[in-house]
Amino acid sequence: MEERYARGCAGYLLEMGALKRSKRSGWWIVGVKEPESIAEHSFRTAVIGSVLAMLEGADPAKVALMCTFHDSQETRVGDIPWIGRRYLTTASNQEVTADQVADAHPVVASGIQAIVDEYETGDSLEVEVAHDADKLECMLQGIEYLEQGYSNAREWVDSTRAKLKSPSAIALADAAQTMTSTEWQRTYLRTTPSASGKAGE
Amino acid sequence: MEERYARGCAGYLLEMGALKRSKRSGWWIVGVKEPESIAEHSFRTAVIGSVLAMLEGADPAKVALMCTFHDSQETRVGDIPWIGRRYLTTASNQEVTADQVADAHPVVASGIQAIVDEYETGDSLEVEVAHDADKLECMLQGIEYLEQGYSNAREWVDSTRAKLKSPSAIALADAAQTMTSTEWQRTYLRTTPSASGKAGE
Amino acid sequence: MEERYARGCAGYLLEMGALKRSKRSGWWIVGVKEPESIAEHSFRTAVIGSVLAMLEGADPAKVALMCTFHDSQETRVGDIPWIGRRYLTTASNQEVTADQVADAHPVVASGIQAIVDEYETGDSLEVEVAHDADKLECMLQGIEYLEQGYSNAREWVDSTRAKLKSPSAIALADAAQTMTSTEWQRTYLRTTPSASGKAGE
Amino acid sequence: MEERYARGCAGYLLEMGALKRSKRSGWWIVGVKEPESIAEHSFRTAVIGSVLAMLEGADPAKVALMCTFHDSQETRVGDIPWIGRRYLTTASNQEVTADQVADAHPVVASGIQAIVDEYETGDSLEVEVAHDADKLECMLQGIEYLEQGYSNAREWVDSTRAKLKSPSAIALADAAQTMTSTEWQRTYLRTTPSASGKAGE
Amino acid sequence: MEERYARGCAGYLLEMGALKRSKRSGWWIVGVKEPESIAEHSFRTAVIGSVLAMLEGADPAKVALMCTFHDSQETRVGDIPWIGRRYLTTASNQEVTADQVADAHPVVASGIQAIVDEYETGDSLEVEVAHDADKLECMLQGIEYLEQGYSNAREWVDSTRAKLKSPSAIALADAAQTMTSTEWQRTYLRTTPSASGKAGE
Amino acid sequence: MEERYARGCAGYLLEMGALKRSKRSGWWIVGVKEPESIAEHSFRTAVIGSVLAMLEGADPAKVALMCTFHDSQETRVGDIPWIGRRYLTTASNQEVTADQVADAHPVVASGIQAIVDEYETGDSLEVEVAHDADKLECMLQGIEYLEQGYSNAREWVDSTRAKLKSPSAIALADAAQTMTSTEWQRTYLRTTPSASGKAGE
Repeated sequence: MEERYARGCAGYLLEMGALKRSKRSGWWIVGVKEPESIAEHSFRTAVIGSVLAMLEGADPAKVALMCTFHDSQETRVGDIPWIGRRYLTTASNQEVTADQVADAHPVVASGIQAIVDEYETGDSLEVEVAHDADKLECMLQGIEYLEQGYSNAREWVDSTRAKLKSPSAIALADAAQTMTSTEWQRTYLRTTPSASGKAGE
Repeated sequence: MEERYARGCAGYLLEMGALKRSKRSGWWIVGVKEPESIAEHSFRTAVIGSVLAMLEGADPAKVALMCTFHDSQETRVGDIPWIGRRYLTTASNQEVTADQVADAHPVVASGIQAIVDEYETGDSLEVEVAHDADKLECMLQGIEYLEQGYSNAREWVDSTRAKLKSPSAIALADAAQTMTSTEWQRTYLRTTPSASGKAGE
Repeated sequence: MEERYARGCAGYLLEMGALKRSKRSGWWIVGVKEPESIAEHSFRTAVIGSVLAMLEGADPAKVALMCTFHDSQETRVGDIPWIGRRYLTTASNQEVTADQVADAHPVVASGIQAIVDEYETGDSLEVEVAHDADKLECMLQGIEYLEQGYSNAREWVDSTRAKLKSPSAIALADAAQTMTSTEWQRTYLRTTPSASGKAGE
Repeated sequence: MEERYARGCAGYLLEMGALKRSKRSGWWIVGVKEPESIAEHSFRTAVIGSVLAMLEGADPAKVALMCTFHDSQETRVGDIPWIGRRYLTTASNQEVTADQVADAHPVVASGIQAIVDEYETGDSLEVEVAHDADKLECMLQGIEYLEQGYSNAREWVDSTRAKLKSPSAIALADAAQTMTSTEWQRTYLRTTPSASGKAGE
Repeated sequence: MEERYARGCAGYLLEMGALKRSKRSGWWIVGVKEPESIAEHSFRTAVIGSVLAMLEGADPAKVALMCTFHDSQETRVGDIPWIGRRYLTTASNQEVTADQVADAHPVVASGIQAIVDEYETGDSLEVEVAHDADKLECMLQGIEYLEQGYSNAREWVDSTRAKLKSPSAIALADAAQTMTSTEWQRTYLRTTPSASGKAGE
Repeated sequence: MEERYARGCAGYLLEMGALKRSKRSGWWIVGVKEPESIAEHSFRTAVIGSVLAMLEGADPAKVALMCTFHDSQETRVGDIPWIGRRYLTTASNQEVTADQVADAHPVVASGIQAIVDEYETGDSLEVEVAHDADKLECMLQGIEYLEQGYSNAREWVDSTRAKLKSPSAIALADAAQTMTSTEWQRTYLRTTPSASGKAGE
């Protein structure tokens, strides 16, 4: 690989590192002082997208790929909260992405642009599922913040729930509303440990 | 979807939420008081895996999917630092995953188990790339911690660099060693802004 | 006071509380994981503005007032980093302010709008000093981040230094570049403690 | 400006930077692990003071100036919580200030001492309003901590409410008790966006 | 002291410094994003152990010593949460300790090994009290997290309460369940301040 | 135990919980935004005290006990930084302790007062070692902050080093100055793992 392409690609990966530090700023309004990062949101969005894809008969890998990159432009435009949309006009995510990959190897530049372009403008089942994953992740986080005491998170839970489209996302959202985030530990209590290679207590 | 499957899937997604709070504990030894979370590491691993796949001629979507789930067992076994391997024996990641998805819809249970199984035991180009992505993410984070003043991060940069296998990963790692994490901003300075829909200053 | 005005004013003060949680996001790019809040920046900007006003023969109270409100719109539009200006067009700060005070008592609404309007469009000595204070605060913070190990803060120190206009701001900036942030403790060591009501060691 | 005065003034501004890191320690007793900083408290105190001044017919600029400096001595004496007053005797804030500005330019030294002296010993309407602003800020923060789940914040809300003197401060405090900290967003929902230069959704 | 022993001892003390950064990871599952460190838990365990020893007629110093070292192996094996015990087998704490003190002065190596060995295998009253202190500390922290809004902490309060053995630990646990963590301030209000050397209000 | 004594003791233990949240405030001046807590400092002080006692031929248990309680008054008087001593007069630690244990069971009240009294006024070898442990802990933390990039920590390393008295403390301090905080990992690399019950890599 040419040196300049290696640097261009490495620069893109270092740029993505800023998302590990950048907070999801809309939660500040709700009262969460140290909300999760954009990277953390993107991670679980990819997990959720994969699961929804399995349930909806879509391609989990394609959905995970789109979810991974769905907020990748926010190194440059930030995480604009809902109320900010009233005051800000932004370049399109495709335009921002074009700048981000301008120095990368052509196969990377075109590859990432294609992912972003499909997420922004496509109409496949995978695209629909990926958008639902974004909303469902936000709703689950709202439920978790409610459990942690942040009473103003209620409105986010309700507003994101209302935006879900696929039957699977709606079913999971409704189930989550009746659970606690530690419910999964009960599965453990019910099952018996497998015999080998595991510690008893 | 049956109610019990919806709850089982939702429980899995809430379990994954714990990775947004769980820190990469090996960095505590190096002196980083508030290291990144496992979710943050997994996010950039998926980004890096996608990019490496494009460069190596592998399937970016398949790699992103494996990278997303590659540390998903750590809700239960934690992020065991290198030195801990000397003292701990763990159940396999497949065994842990089997417990995690025990209550999920069968299509989700088998889907996630297949992803984990391939990452752990497969020998495709995608698997190799995904493992390199895990290492390269850790190395880039080490470079970033060095930039932030943590002088003990040096050893991690060197040890993870030594484990990379694919030519692309090695090329990007070597390029990154000669850059700062803000290098990508220079691309911006060099290019001229596109004409429409963007603010000048 | 009419109930509706009391609520409108209280709502504005609670809105300003979001600035105690909102981070100065440009520092994320530089590598600072937990940068200071907009409120913290605004506080020292007011201190600096007061001091510069004394040195330049301007009105310290008027400058402190403008500095206090100079970023008050960022509850709604966020702290847009320098690179974001390339991609975002925003409503004017006066327009945002008009929304923020829409329900407040008329004397408060017009009072705050007048402060913001003068900061944005005025050309008095006080306005110039207030703008210098904003820049100098950012530069001093950059020096402090450098001391704390964040090597990428260098570029912010240099770029904000270059924007200062008043002789006093330039003199203080140049002095600060040759000092550490704990220099003030040496004054203490040099002086002798006053006699009464103070603890010896 | 003489070099020594530039250094003395810069040293003072760097000393004030410590307030961006220093926490309001009384909240630790209540159970808040990461309370706001003294700088954050001082910022909103200045905002509140300005608003109260407008409502009470006092000079907003003069009040903002006093509020900005009202806790500036806490770089040296710390934020002594209420219970600490039982065990500690402190030098006066004027004495501490005298040490802080000892090396600054004479116009700055006398300027800051005058501000502190008036806040500590004055009896003008501006002084009364500034003291009320300090209390009201603390009360609003208590309301916000309650919303965030910290149940022990109740006692601070009640005790600071009881200390307010001016009719405007009391009216705003009572209004705030019946609101949530996101109330201001409803104003937005009620109004229609202005036509130009703003994004729709 | 031989140089190699000084280095070995200093290395052990620096290793213990990692416990000041390492979080009690079980709380992440409950929803606490920034739980207390292992060092913080160990500190209050020593305080509690001393108090229980006084009440039970055991030796407070011996208990404090064991409590101080009771989690000292977690620099290497981490804080394994309850659910992790299902998947992990660990070397004994004595084995880990042997590695930790391998380079220390022989008197230190044997001294620390003896403390750990007694805590792990002894059956004196002091040992029983030290184990109760570990559980009671965790329960009190659970009560405090509940007060701070973390509703999922309930299960920890109940499960640790159920493990207490000594009458004193049970009595204190039951008392704590009916109190708030600020109860101690009321004692202050009831008593009158001592006459000399203290500030009035 | 009488109910009132159980509550008095529980109240004391909950009061000690505030030290898990209270930061060592002197480090704010040096530029550390999130310094360690008083509890974290006290924990390692107890570890260091135990080790120094072993080396000096003192009683490790007695020293650990004194170190555990040596800053226990700081729930009420705070962690007064060095410069604050110039401005503050405090009640004695024995007076503060008397208030803290006023409602506890008499055996606890007298027991804790005796510990504090000995630490403050005793002249045994154990007391000297405990005081050295307090200083050495602070010095080691300074070395760690230096490693993490905080360049202003230098002065604390030097000033605390100068206060050490016992030969062992001085020897360990001088050794630590030539090491990194991860030195202990090299011991691991040099030794061969024990045969049973441990994971290979």
